Formats: sequence, C-alpha cells, structure tokens
Amino acid sequence: MNKQERDAIYGLAKEWVLEAGSTIRERIYDPLTIDTKADANDLVTTMDKDTEYFFMTNIKNVYPDHSIIGEEGYGDDVATLDGTVWIIDPIDGTMNFVHQKRNFAISVGIYHDGVGEIGLIYDVMANNLYSAKRGEGAFKNEKELPALPQQKNFHESILGVNHFWLCENHLVNEKQMQDLVRTVRGTRSYGSAAIEFAFVAEGSLDGYMTMGLSAWDIAAGIVIVNEVGGVTTTSFGEPINLLKKSSVLTCNPAIQEQIVDGFLLKGRK
Amino acid sequence: MNKQERDAIYGLAKEWVLEAGSTIRERIYDPLTIDTKADANDLVTTMDKDTEYFFMTNIKNVYPDHSIIGEEGYGDDVATLDGTVWIIDPIDGTMNFVHQKRNFAISVGIYHDGVGEIGLIYDVMANNLYSAKRGEGAFKNEKELPALPQQKNFHESILGVNHFWLCENHLVNEKQMQDLVRTVRGTRSYGSAAIEFAFVAEGSLDGYMTMGLSAWDIAAGIVIVNEVGGVTTTSFGEPINLLKKSSVLTCNPAIQEQIVDGFLLKGRK
Repeated sequence: MNKQERDAIYGLAKEWVLEAGSTIRERIYDPLTIDTKADANDLVTTMDKDTEYFFMTNIKNVYPDHSIIGEEGYGDDVATLDGTVWIIDPIDGTMNFVHQKRNFAISVGIYHDGVGEIGLIYDVMANNLYSAKRGEGAFKNEKELPALPQQKNFHESILGVNHFWLCENHLVNEKQMQDLVRTVRGTRSYGSAAIEFAFVAEGSLDGYMTMGLSAWDIAAGIVIVNEVGGVTTTSFGEPINLLKKSSVLTCNPAIQEQIVDGFLLKGRK
Repeated sequence: MNKQERDAIYGLAKEWVLEAGSTIRERIYDPLTIDTKADANDLVTTMDKDTEYFFMTNIKNVYPDHSIIGEEGYGDDVATLDGTVWIIDPIDGTMNFVHQKRNFAISVGIYHDGVGEIGLIYDVMANNLYSAKRGEGAFKNEKELPALPQQKNFHESILGVNHFWLCENHLVNEKQMQDLVRTVRGTRSYGSAAIEFAFVAEGSLDGYMTMGLSAWDIAAGIVIVNEVGGVTTTSFGEPINLLKKSSVLTCNPAIQEQIVDGFLLKGRK
C-alpha cells in the first residue's frame, strides 16, 4: 500500500468514524434493544449493528475489493489477511455503552497483507480520537503522542487488568496474578479493550492485559501502540494471530519481560 | 444547622472547591514533588498539601469554630464529630493524578453533630461537580440526579471492585469474591473512591466496595449517595464510623443484601 493510497483510505476512515460517533451521541438516550451473544454478559444492541452496517456499506461502496472483519457479522468470511482488510468493532465496551452511556469506543484497524497500516480508536462520548498510520506516529486528536519512556520502574507501573485474571481461570494460576497485582503500583479496569489500548498509548496505563480477545478488539490498538514504541503480544509473549481469539498483553517494552517472564509464564497452565 | 446557615456554608464550600480545582488544572503539568506515606504506593504531592492548606486557611478564616479532618494533616486533631466538621480529601486518587493527570477528585463532606449535611465531589479534569445537601437531592453540575432504580437485577449489576479484594487478604476469603465477580455482569476499578461514589450516585456503577478507607475518602460520597437513595455501610453491612478506618460498601439498596449476605459475610475472616 503506497502512501497516497493509505492517506486516502485514512481520510475516509476518519470521516466515517467521526460521523458514526456523532450519530451515536445523538441517539445515546434512545431506547435500546439489547440482546446477548456468547453469554448473558456479552451484550449487543441495535446501535452496534447499525454502526457496523454503516461502515460496511460505506467501505463496500468505495472499496469493493477490501475485506471486512466486523464484530457483528456484517463483514466477510475472512480466512486470510491478504489484501486490504478493515477490522471493525462498532462499539467496543458495549456493557459501558448500555450501563454508563460512556467509556466505549469505535475501533477501526486497517491492515494490508497482514501489516497494520491504520488504527483509529474513537472514545465517542469523551470525543477523543486516537489515530495512527504506520511509521507516522500516533495522535490523540491533533496532538502527537510522545514515545513511551524507555525507562520504567516496574514497581511504579499501573496496569489495566480484568478481574477475571484473579479468579480461577484456564490460562494462568491466579496466585501469580495476585503477586503481580501486589508488585506493581496500581491496577485499573475500564471495560473497553480499545480504550485501554489507547490509555497505554498515551501513558495513562503502562500495560493492559486481557484474556480472550478477537481481532476487532485489538486491531486498531496494536497499530496505535506500535507507533509510540509499545509492544503487543499474547500474554505469554508470543506473536498475535488476528485470525483467532487470543490472550493479549500490550505494554511499554521496558516492563514486558518482567510481566511475561516474572508472572504470566510462571503461572501458565 | 438551619437551612440558611447550611446554604451559606455550601455556597462557600462550592466556591472553594471550584477555585482549588481551577488552580490544579492550571498547574497540572508543573513538576511534582512526590512523597510516599504509609507505603510505597501511598503517594502525596505538593499539590495535595497546597490544596488542603488552601481549604484550611479559608475555613478557619470564616468559620474559626468549625473543625477540619484532612488527609494531609493540616486539619485538627478531631476526636468526636460534635459541632461542624469539614472532612476533606484535597486530591482523592493521587496515583491517578500523578500517572494519568486525570481521574482524581476534590472531596469535601461537611457534617454537623455527626450528620452528613453537605457533600461535594469535584472530578477536576472532567470538570464535573457532584453535590448534595441533605434532603435536597444530589446534582451533577446543574442537573439533579434521578433516584436509583428500586428494582435491580443483581446479575446485571456493575460493581467497582479494587483488585486487592481478589488477592488473599485479611478481611474476606478471596474465593467468595471470585464468585461475586462471576455472578455480576461486570466489575470496574477506577482508582478514586470519591469518583467511584459519584459513579454509584449517577448509576454508572451499581455498587462500589473498598477495603480500608478513611473519613476523607468517603464523607462527601456518603451524603451524595444518600440523596439518590443509595446506602453506605462497612462491607459487612454495619454502620460506618467516620472516626476510624473501615471497609466500605456503597450501593443501590436493591442489591445490598445480595452482596453482603451472599458473599461478603460468607467469606468474612
């Protein structure tokens, strides 16, 4: 993908993200039809579906040869990342959307032949757009985000950690996770992977880890975090395969080894 | 305390809270001197101290007979809640203040003969002021907050839970807490007790529980949550004594029994 092409795609993607966000803000107090998916707490609303449909029709109209991976199923049945693939979560943090009417994001990652080219995370109610093009830096609205600090005292870091890591689980011995919580300065949980990736990119969190995420939760975040010098792997330090669900750790590389080798690998089941 | 007196105190307290917040916003990127208190993660900065000093001098100037309980030690040595007592946390969520430059609050509770009369929680960077006078409702900025819903499906509630509840601790068997996390719809952790009380008052969270808090962390929140029909006790359902540290549960009363009897008392050590 050459720069001119990418800039054109970026321009449209940004326009659509802002337009979709504006529609969501206008309709934020409309009555919702809430359904559940994988389990009783895996929520989906008409707004998730309408927003994904909006992206799908726009993309197919301008770029009929691009593929789409979307959370709500309007995308394509994508088996490879060949060509240009839009990876979309229309509302990341649907539980927050339903219960809090904020703290959710539109997440759009655009990959070409498997390489993350564009990332857009739009915290809709805060009206904060995090964006990046590969090799051109990451931005919060119009302001470029500084590179993550190269030195970071692990004991002074703040991590985004879902509470399920500390419950008995199939991935990691929870005792190791308890030790991790006691070792770092603080832990937080905000309920939106996209927003937590954005917080890592801007340095509000030094790392974020989660258990079973899909491509749409992380595709944009990976590109944005990359651009400030952050690193994203599975929770055991392995490369992410966007075509299947996996655990995820995104963080400042200065603390990655301490988290992975010191806690997650030690507790691996 | 009669209404006229209380309105006058409220007016000044609100003015000082907004002024202190404005000063903090102006100085948010100034270099900080960070010290630690009880442990390496119990942070205090010059901004905490300066802000408390600002309140103390203003209060003592206008109300020399009022007492002050403040986190940073500029207050009085208060042994009873007789008379009018200002209970102040100049920056609640100092870790967020230092690391995130947001998600912290000024918390001011004003009690008369042990009864909470006024509560002010100011989320400084979001510029959201939560306020209440006893019996006159709670507000977010100029807008009155609705009463909490009288019916609440426990399985659909979202709770603010510090990660330490899920680590081995001296209060509650952590297995019970794991069950609680699995039983409710979602759990969050924001790192500021005052803001989490405000989130309960506005319905963004249905409950918030924490382990060892002091009067300044909760005094304002108790008054505000009361005004929307919420309830605040120790985590075992007992009355709070503001003169000593205790565990805290603030929540919609519709789910209090389920949390306390179903999980916290069962796991009590």
